[in-house]
Amino acid sequence: MSEDRYKKGIEMLKIMNPDSYKQLSDNLDDIAPDMARLIAEFPYGDIYTRQGLDLKTRELVTVAAVTVLGSAQTQLGSHIKGALNVGCTREEIVEVLIQMAVYAGFPTALNAIYTAKEVFEELDAKK
Amino acid sequence: MSEDRYKKGIEMLKIMNPDSYKQLSDNLDDIAPDMARLIAEFPYGDIYTRQGLDLKTRELVTVAAVTVLGSAQTQLGSHIKGALNVGCTREEIVEVLIQMAVYAGFPTALNAIYTAKEVFEELDAKK
Amino acid sequence: MSEDRYKKGIEMLKIMNPDSYKQLSDNLDDIAPDMARLIAEFPYGDIYTRQGLDLKTRELVTVAAVTVLGSAQTQLGSHIKGALNVGCTREEIVEVLIQMAVYAGFPTALNAIYTAKEVFEELDAKK
Amino acid sequence: MSEDRYKKGIEMLKIMNPDSYKQLSDNLDDIAPDMARLIAEFPYGDIYTRQGLDLKTRELVTVAAVTVLGSAQTQLGSHIKGALNVGCTREEIVEVLIQMAVYAGFPTALNAIYTAKEVFEELDAKK
Amino acid sequence: MSEDRYKKGIEMLKIMNPDSYKQLSDNLDDIAPDMARLIAEFPYGDIYTRQGLDLKTRELVTVAAVTVLGSAQTQLGSHIKGALNVGCTREEIVEVLIQMAVYAGFPTALNAIYTAKEVFEELDAKK
Amino acid sequence: MSEDRYKKGIEMLKIMNPDSYKQLSDNLDDIAPDMARLIAEFPYGDIYTRQGLDLKTRELVTVAAVTVLGSAQTQLGSHIKGALNVGCTREEIVEVLIQMAVYAGFPTALNAIYTAKEVFEELDAKK
Repeated sequence: MSEDRYKKGIEMLKIMNPDSYKQLSDNLDDIAPDMARLIAEFPYGDIYTRQGLDLKTRELVTVAAVTVLGSAQTQLGSHIKGALNVGCTREEIVEVLIQMAVYAGFPTALNAIYTAKEVFEELDAKK
Repeated sequence: MSEDRYKKGIEMLKIMNPDSYKQLSDNLDDIAPDMARLIAEFPYGDIYTRQGLDLKTRELVTVAAVTVLGSAQTQLGSHIKGALNVGCTREEIVEVLIQMAVYAGFPTALNAIYTAKEVFEELDAKK
Repeated sequence: MSEDRYKKGIEMLKIMNPDSYKQLSDNLDDIAPDMARLIAEFPYGDIYTRQGLDLKTRELVTVAAVTVLGSAQTQLGSHIKGALNVGCTREEIVEVLIQMAVYAGFPTALNAIYTAKEVFEELDAKK
Repeated sequence: MSEDRYKKGIEMLKIMNPDSYKQLSDNLDDIAPDMARLIAEFPYGDIYTRQGLDLKTRELVTVAAVTVLGSAQTQLGSHIKGALNVGCTREEIVEVLIQMAVYAGFPTALNAIYTAKEVFEELDAKK
Repeated sequence: MSEDRYKKGIEMLKIMNPDSYKQLSDNLDDIAPDMARLIAEFPYGDIYTRQGLDLKTRELVTVAAVTVLGSAQTQLGSHIKGALNVGCTREEIVEVLIQMAVYAGFPTALNAIYTAKEVFEELDAKK
Repeated sequence: MSEDRYKKGIEMLKIMNPDSYKQLSDNLDDIAPDMARLIAEFPYGDIYTRQGLDLKTRELVTVAAVTVLGSAQTQLGSHIKGALNVGCTREEIVEVLIQMAVYAGFPTALNAIYTAKEVFEELDAKK
C-alpha cells in the first residue's frame, strides 16, 4: 500500500509537473533521497489525489499559500507551472497573486508576480 | 469615482459577508473609522470585483492565505463564512485546510481546521 | 503497509503524548477525520519513527520550530509535554525557549515561555 | 559593567513602561528568571539606550515590527503603552497600524488595531 | 477621484523614490499592469498621503516592517532609499535595523543590514 | 564584565564557527560595527555559554529555528557548519531538516535541505 502511495504520487506529479520530480529527485539523491520519496507519497500521493477539490483549485490555493510564505520562490515557480499544467490560465494565476497583496502585503505579492513573470518568460522562450 | 469604489466594495461585502462589514465598521468606529472605509474600497471595491477569477476561487485562495498567516483566526473565520456565502461547500473548505499542512505545516493547518469547526458549529446552532 | 504507518504512528503517539491523539481524534471527528489519520501516519508514523535522531532531540527541535511559528501555542504546549514524556527536563525546554529570543525575537520567545509555564503548572496541579 | 547594563535597562523600562517590568519579572520568576534579566539588559539596556534614534521613533518602529509578527498581541499592547509613555499620540500609533495593511496585509493590521483599541479603552477606564 | 488617487500616488512616489515607480511600472507592464496602478493608488495615493505621521517616520516604520517580513530584500532596499530621500540619515536607518534583532531575531536583522550596506554602496558609487 | 561577555562570545564563536565572526565583523565594519559586537556579546556570550543544554542540541534547535524563518539561508548555512563543528553528524542535521516539513511545510524544509547540500559540497571541496 505504501508502494501504492508512491506510485499514485508519481502519477499525480506526472500530470502536474512532469519535469519537477525528476529534478527534485536528482537534487536530493546524495543528501536526502528519502525526502524525494516522502514528497511523492505525502503531498502528491495522499493530498493531491483526494476527492473534494479539483486540481485547478488545489494548485491555485497552493500558489496563494506559497506566495504568503514569501521565501520559497523556487517552489512558487514550480506550482505556477503546475497550475498551468492542470488547466489554469496565466490570468487566473496573476489574479491570485494580485489578491495576495491584501493578505500578505504588497512586497510579498510583488515578489510572487516577478516569479510568475520569470516562469511565463521561460515558457515563452521554450515555444 | 472614489465613492464608486466604496459603493462597489459595500455591495461586494453584502454578497460575501453581509454581517461582517457592519461589525467591522462598528468595531473601528471610535479608533480608525478610515480603516473600515479603506477595507470596503481596496480589498472589496478594487480587488474582489476584478474579472478573471470567480468569487468561489477568490475566497478559497484567501482561506489558504489567511491560514498560512497563522495568527488571524478571526479573519479566517470571516472568510470561511464568506466562502460558504459565495457557494463553496464545507468539504471544499476543509480540503483546502488539510492541504495547507503541506505548505504551512501541521500545527498551522490544524488551528485553521479548529477555526472552521467553530464556524460550522456556530452556523449549525443558528439553524 | 499504510495500516502499518498508522499503527506505528499511534504507537509513537502513545510514547510521546498518550492523551493527545485521543483528544485530537475526538476534535477532528466531525469535521476532518482524515486529518487525524494523516497526522498519525505522516508526522508520527513516517517522521518520528525515523532513525538518525533520538526522540529527545526530535522533540526539542520541534519545540524550537513551533515557537518560531508564533501562532501555534496549543501545539507548542503539546510538544512541551511530549518533550517531557520522552525524557527532556524542564530546564532543557526552557533553555531552548530562551535561545529562541536570538532567532525569532523576544516577544515570540516570551510567549513560548508563558506557554511552557502554563504546561508546567497544569502538570504540577495534577500531581 | 553587566550590572550597569541591567541598571540602564531598568531605568529605560521605568521611562517606557513602568508597570511592565515588574509584571514581566513576576511572570518569569518561577520559570525563567534569567529571561527577565536578559530582557532588561539586552533590549532595554543595550538597544533602547543607543544614540541615533529618539525613543518615540524607537517605539513606533517596534509597534510596526510587532504588528508584522502577528502573534504577539500582548507585547504589541505593551509597546503601544510604551509609545504613549514616551510621547507618541494615539493618532500616530493608529497611523502606523493602518500603514501596516500595506506591508503585512489587512488581517494582520486589523488585529493590531483591535489590540490598540483594547489598550486605549483600558487607559480610558483608568482615568 | 480615482484618477486623483493615482496622481497623488505618483506625486508621492516622485518624492519618495523617483526611479522606483518607472522601474516597477516597466517590470509589471507585460504581466500585471494593474498592479502598478494599484500600488500608485493604494499605498502611495491613499496611505502615505495621510495626515498624522511625517514621511520620515512612515518610511522608518516601513523599513522595520519589511525587515520583519524577511523575504522582501528588494523592497527593503527601495524603502531604505525612500527613507534617505525623505530625509532620514543612514545612522537612523541602521539603528532601526539593529533594533529589529530584538523583535525579528538576529539572522533577519543581519540580512536587512546587508541590504542597507548594498544600497549605501550603490549610492556611494553613483556619487 | 561587558568585556567578559564579548570575550566569552568570541571564544564560543571560535569553537562553533571559527571563520564566521571574522567574516561577520569584516562585513559589518563600515556599516554597523556595533552589531558585530552585539552578536558576540548576546547570542554567543550570553546565550550559547549558558548551562543546561549541550552545544550540539543548541545548534540543532537553531538549525530548526532558522529553517522555519525561511528567509535566512546564509545564517542557516553558518549554523549547519556550526552544528558540524560542535559534533553533530550530517545525518542528524538532515533529519532535523526533513522533520521541519511537518512544522514549516515542505517548500521551506526543501530549501533548507538545498542549503545543507551546498554547505556539505563546499566542505567536501575543501578536503
